[in-house]
Amino acid sequence: MGIDDLPVRDELRGKSPYGAPQLDVPVRLNTNENPYPLPEPLVERITERVREAARNLNRYPDRDAVELRTELANYLTKTGKYAVGVENVWAANGSNEVIQQLLQTFGGPGRTAIGFEPSYSMHGLIARGTGTGWISGPRRDDFTIDLATARQAIAEERPDVVFITTPNNPTGNAVPPETVLALYEAAQAAKPSMVVVDEAYIEFSHGDSLLPLLEGRPNLVVSRTMSKAFGAAGLRLGYLAAHPAVVDAVQLVRLPYHLSAVTQATALAALEHTGVLLKYVEQLKAERDRLVAELRAIGYEVTESDANFVQFGRFADAHEIWQKILDRGVLVRDNGVPGWLRVSAGTPEENDAFLDAVRELKKDQEQEQSA
Amino acid sequence: MGIDDLPVRDELRGKSPYGAPQLDVPVRLNTNENPYPLPEPLVERITERVREAARNLNRYPDRDAVELRTELANYLTKTGKYAVGVENVWAANGSNEVIQQLLQTFGGPGRTAIGFEPSYSMHGLIARGTGTGWISGPRRDDFTIDLATARQAIAEERPDVVFITTPNNPTGNAVPPETVLALYEAAQAAKPSMVVVDEAYIEFSHGDSLLPLLEGRPNLVVSRTMSKAFGAAGLRLGYLAAHPAVVDAVQLVRLPYHLSAVTQATALAALEHTGVLLKYVEQLKAERDRLVAELRAIGYEVTESDANFVQFGRFADAHEIWQKILDRGVLVRDNGVPGWLRVSAGTPEENDAFLDAVRELKKDQEQEQSA
Repeated sequence: MGIDDLPVRDELRGKSPYGAPQLDVPVRLNTNENPYPLPEPLVERITERVREAARNLNRYPDRDAVELRTELANYLTKTGKYAVGVENVWAANGSNEVIQQLLQTFGGPGRTAIGFEPSYSMHGLIARGTGTGWISGPRRDDFTIDLATARQAIAEERPDVVFITTPNNPTGNAVPPETVLALYEAAQAAKPSMVVVDEAYIEFSHGDSLLPLLEGRPNLVVSRTMSKAFGAAGLRLGYLAAHPAVVDAVQLVRLPYHLSAVTQATALAALEHTGVLLKYVEQLKAERDRLVAELRAIGYEVTESDANFVQFGRFADAHEIWQKILDRGVLVRDNGVPGWLRVSAGTPEENDAFLDAVRELKKDQEQEQSA
Repeated sequence: MGIDDLPVRDELRGKSPYGAPQLDVPVRLNTNENPYPLPEPLVERITERVREAARNLNRYPDRDAVELRTELANYLTKTGKYAVGVENVWAANGSNEVIQQLLQTFGGPGRTAIGFEPSYSMHGLIARGTGTGWISGPRRDDFTIDLATARQAIAEERPDVVFITTPNNPTGNAVPPETVLALYEAAQAAKPSMVVVDEAYIEFSHGDSLLPLLEGRPNLVVSRTMSKAFGAAGLRLGYLAAHPAVVDAVQLVRLPYHLSAVTQATALAALEHTGVLLKYVEQLKAERDRLVAELRAIGYEVTESDANFVQFGRFADAHEIWQKILDRGVLVRDNGVPGWLRVSAGTPEENDAFLDAVRELKKDQEQEQSA
């Protein structure tokens, strides 16, 4: 008696659940987590806020999460060079749920969405989960988006939703603002369709957020997360900024009271401590740049990175190399991009352990070749 | 610029978001919340557990929520007269998300679900949100399910998912186990289809949980929530018990890491305190029975209740009466069932305030009629 003996939807037959292997390894650099635990004063503030929320836990939470959305708007205004208010912001359980709500509103049966792949694979998986047709758009061999080809794909396919992930995951590179703008215009000419700019890793970028592009563009959405820059992957708090009409629209599909009172309380505590959290981001950016430089010095190819991770290669058999790095006690990610692996920027010590492992590997390979 | 100026799905045009009016009123008996705040030792245990979780918040939560599902299984085994293990239990952000995952797995585009209405209106709304066709099945005028008519509906419509809410919301009455069994058999003969028994209010019932029916019935699911009996509506923790294959299947559609570390920590703390929480349930059952008796004594019609709320009527214009009760400082629920209103069992003082209000109303009406 297994899944296929149940009356599941046909397209689910033979599938397996999404998720990185969870292995017990000394150095885990596989899921782009922030390696720095929250500072102890923030931990204490979380417990204070949650204690308060727990005393009222018999009541439903604020369905519209007004205080939280206000503070998220303040954070975006402070860091994004563009003023947004509570009416521009929506929040959910992780950016995955934000994306799911967007696809339920603007995609769904009989509609399609496009992403330029390789990119964040959950876009396509959530499309499948919401009955939205998925179109795999093109990237160049160096993982940049070729504007002419991308525009052509949009004009031909006329998708209802366009995903642009910048900085892109798993490749790490950012999409130039003028490319995003041109793709937005192509999408409006073709349909018009919604354009979702996934900025999960934007705080680690050398460049700025694309929030200012929201001005005068009601079909543009910028999605964000507290998982990476806020060091709060365990919190599951994603959010978006957009025209107020978009915020109104997703409320037609959101499950009522979707954000728990403890989630709202914890996120609000973290938003009080953005100063110290963004200092960790600076450390991680420096470590990310060091990883890029050292990997290149060792002799690997490295994709430009604006994220908290680095894509490196090329390998005839990436999975074999993944296993060999794992054998040395370091878990990186094989995202299925042929020839490439992805390593998250950890603490200096974790990154040293990783660099030692790949240095050894390189030496072994060179000895094999000269033997 | 509003929702309809965006490229939203056609079926969302002109809709408004689900949710009870949130009004600032002295006595709120409109959303079936548990009126008793969590006891202070439990609040402290929550803060301890959350402090621990917060120290690891930079890491993703346990994707499979194994500890939480184990403790939920223990709770069900202890109270449900049927032994289940972690492999039988799945949890999500509120029973709404459980239902959404079930419909994504077993419903969706080209498939249908049936519920016997009036019932929990989110079943139909989540069906719409997942592209599942919705069939409104029949109830008798006294809100019981007529087995012959219900069987006929299943045989004719051949739905992929059958919802049976027991105790039913908003009417309050339970469905006899033999009716559930007969509907399960009818559903298997027709398709076979999944049968979801929504037991959100089961802890308040005079009867037992239908968990033992899971034995030998892989297409049966029992869904539950911590919102009501556990006094934790703010926590958003729903769960289900079923054959392990069902638990495997919903993992094909669940968003990865859907349950935050703080949600898991808070729920685990509450599960340590089930003894005291179930004592509140006993108090609420007594108050519920008192509401039924007093409303009848006043001269209202009352539907039999196995839940923490009571449906009363009949009114020529239920909404007018809802407003008059509100004018007296008590918020009840107009669920749109013609002629009827629903009141949640509150504290003895809240229930007194409600009973005083409706007693006054009745007196005023009698005076008007005799004038």
